[in-house]
Amino acid sequence: MNGEISLNLATTGQQWGFGEAVDGCLRHGITAISPWRDQIEAIGIEEAANIVRSNGLRVSGVCRGGMFPAETALGRQANIDDNLRAIDQAAALDADCLVLVVGGLPGSSKDLPGARGMVADGIAAMLPHARASGVRIAIEPLHPMYAADRACVNTIDQALDICASLDESVGVAIDVYHVWWDPRLAEAIARAGRMNRIFAHHICDWLVPTTDMLLDRGMMGDGVIDLPAIRAMIETAGYHGPQEVEIFSRDNWWQRPGDEVLDVIKERVATVC
Amino acid sequence: MNGEISLNLATTGQQWGFGEAVDGCLRHGITAISPWRDQIEAIGIEEAANIVRSNGLRVSGVCRGGMFPAETALGRQANIDDNLRAIDQAAALDADCLVLVVGGLPGSSKDLPGARGMVADGIAAMLPHARASGVRIAIEPLHPMYAADRACVNTIDQALDICASLDESVGVAIDVYHVWWDPRLAEAIARAGRMNRIFAHHICDWLVPTTDMLLDRGMMGDGVIDLPAIRAMIETAGYHGPQEVEIFSRDNWWQRPGDEVLDVIKERVATVC
Repeated sequence: MNGEISLNLATTGQQWGFGEAVDGCLRHGITAISPWRDQIEAIGIEEAANIVRSNGLRVSGVCRGGMFPAETALGRQANIDDNLRAIDQAAALDADCLVLVVGGLPGSSKDLPGARGMVADGIAAMLPHARASGVRIAIEPLHPMYAADRACVNTIDQALDICASLDESVGVAIDVYHVWWDPRLAEAIARAGRMNRIFAHHICDWLVPTTDMLLDRGMMGDGVIDLPAIRAMIETAGYHGPQEVEIFSRDNWWQRPGDEVLDVIKERVATVC
Repeated sequence: MNGEISLNLATTGQQWGFGEAVDGCLRHGITAISPWRDQIEAIGIEEAANIVRSNGLRVSGVCRGGMFPAETALGRQANIDDNLRAIDQAAALDADCLVLVVGGLPGSSKDLPGARGMVADGIAAMLPHARASGVRIAIEPLHPMYAADRACVNTIDQALDICASLDESVGVAIDVYHVWWDPRLAEAIARAGRMNRIFAHHICDWLVPTTDMLLDRGMMGDGVIDLPAIRAMIETAGYHGPQEVEIFSRDNWWQRPGDEVLDVIKERVATVC
């Protein structure tokens, strides 16, 4: 199994900015990262690209594009325009992909199929610029508990149905936190492999109990997800890239020194992933 | 559309016991209820059955059986035995069905497929007694956010796959809170109709934001679920029974007088469901 780690910079986002996180990764022998756009913009895209290049880093993804639905055509176009800027940032960092959190219900709408249509339309609209820029787009299905307010694409199969209507520059980011419960998980990952659409693999863990729907993700091994089983499905499906560690943990891991967090991540990836 | 209401007695469970809730329902012209086993046991099954019969009430369901997975064969048998007692209670009340919350991962297990196998085995084991007692069994798929600790059956399709291997005394309880996000919702409800397996329809609403994963359900109309659309799917699929109102709401509806809650329920069912 490929034990390569990528650090999603949200994991240490409360402790470290872009440059500090890269320094921390290098101290720990981690040579892949996945930054968020606010972290990139805080230092500027040229400086971010310079740090990536000069250290020979792999950028496993840029977080995030998406958020397509809006109540008006003007709003939807503004969202697409923002995604075009995100493509430029991903291109400047030579990222493996731009990760999409696609957005939920716009305004006071209860029309989930309608929102899903806006997502498919938005991705199609950004695709020409992505292709021209050499940037792959990774739809990240989010857990169904985020369907209303964050992402109305909630299963790998649903994301693949969108992919199937587009070309191979659109794929999926598989985050165990969002998909581990899916009764069709094995079949869906195999299908993604056959379609050659697995662009990223994010890991963390599902805690029992979970005390916050957004900011209580667990460190690998502290929860109930069978991480080795899911990694085996993903590698069997043909993806051998890094496991990207993305942990939103307001009350635990965000309170610890970044170096301690990286120590634990390395130990857990080596033993329980 | 059938505007018949059933009151799931959890909705007023902090204000009213079994008898008080029935009195409240009758004051408001509601003639169907769905009690929980602890509420039945608090007054005894004979008294509960007498209240139901003497008032000509419909019992749209008894909550709940299930909770099959356990780490040992002895534990699993104890869980099956408890389900046999639940069948007797449902039979005594002439309930439309016994609702199953099937249970999650047993102990420290991370084996979700294994837990799902225990659920299928448990349902099969209770079925002869259910058939002999004339009690139908309704598997309630729970929202994926409960996969670890409450129910590892998380979609209507998954529940129907279990049903398909058994006879027509096993069906599904469709609670909008648990299934509204499902990209396959329309297809799954239609499939349930073709299989003649829709035994119950529960309603409430999904609030944005949701502040508690268990006890922050919304009153119909206060959230994002397109209730008329889902009811139309269910009636088209052939189910015309009551809409059972089940709202766990620690900080809002459980704090209000039961009569106020019933007033609002009636108004909302008439206007937004």
